[in-house]
Amino acid sequence: MIIINTGNGKGKTTAAMGQILRSLGHGFKVCLIQLFKSESFYGEQKILTKLDNLDFFSFAKEHPYCVKGISPEEVRTQCTVAMRKIKEIADNNKKYDLIVLEEFTIALRDKFIDENEFITFVRQLSKESDVIVTGRSASWALIDTADLVTEMKEIKHPYNKGIQAKKGIEY
Amino acid sequence: MIIINTGNGKGKTTAAMGQILRSLGHGFKVCLIQLFKSESFYGEQKILTKLDNLDFFSFAKEHPYCVKGISPEEVRTQCTVAMRKIKEIADNNKKYDLIVLEEFTIALRDKFIDENEFITFVRQLSKESDVIVTGRSASWALIDTADLVTEMKEIKHPYNKGIQAKKGIEY
Repeated sequence: MIIINTGNGKGKTTAAMGQILRSLGHGFKVCLIQLFKSESFYGEQKILTKLDNLDFFSFAKEHPYCVKGISPEEVRTQCTVAMRKIKEIADNNKKYDLIVLEEFTIALRDKFIDENEFITFVRQLSKESDVIVTGRSASWALIDTADLVTEMKEIKHPYNKGIQAKKGIEY
Repeated sequence: MIIINTGNGKGKTTAAMGQILRSLGHGFKVCLIQLFKSESFYGEQKILTKLDNLDFFSFAKEHPYCVKGISPEEVRTQCTVAMRKIKEIADNNKKYDLIVLEEFTIALRDKFIDENEFITFVRQLSKESDVIVTGRSASWALIDTADLVTEMKEIKHPYNKGIQAKKGIEY
């Protein structure tokens, strides 16, 4: 099954993390590949990485939009490495019940990753595993490929009142 | 901060579970109170309940809509016990950084719990803790009280093709 968590609201990543927890709770094997997220900044990483049956990979830890001094070329190179890892898993996938591809919609939107190639890999992965792709701005082509799509829609957010990201809530 | 995960789509519970993981990862203390969920059926419960710093309570484990033979009176009694637990925490809340109230919107919608009383308790809890309330059909009064509201909106779901709930995904 191919699942997408998209939209401008909160909960795309946390829902994927809850899904990982659910899967691990049943004794399943899970692979989490994150883009654009510094390791150990997010609270959940500190627990997840200690749990059995989870393989965790992180590439392109910073996005040029968020961190100055990161060149798009550097990000593109890292995304290529991430895609190589996905291909490696897809070509030899006997291992995982669930594969979570975090923030890949952003890499697609910003053309760091080729969409057709990504969709081909995701379809291939989904033959053996459930695959969750998270991030805003999921394309219609990706949505079309998916079985289950949720839009996390912002109804109210304290950002709009100028309140800063809060530890334990936003990260 | 008062946070609501509502809407007809997937991700309300899993996002709350991811949020718990995030919070525990920072060494925070968390309280999870669930309604309408059999214990140990959901994969995430098996892991969460083993983690340090989480107190887990479950009341009214079945909803009359889902399980035949459950009387609404029985559910109302159990919801009253849940509300007593919430009051107890609210009256003496030095303990939790995050309090998650799972499926309480359903108990409000179905009048098992008084809305004004619930909103009063949630406001009281939110003075010391972040509070997440999950479930479909959140009322406007509850949304009005909250700081951060996300609607999990179903764009596509395999249920609509007649596919059954899948272990590790839906539970």
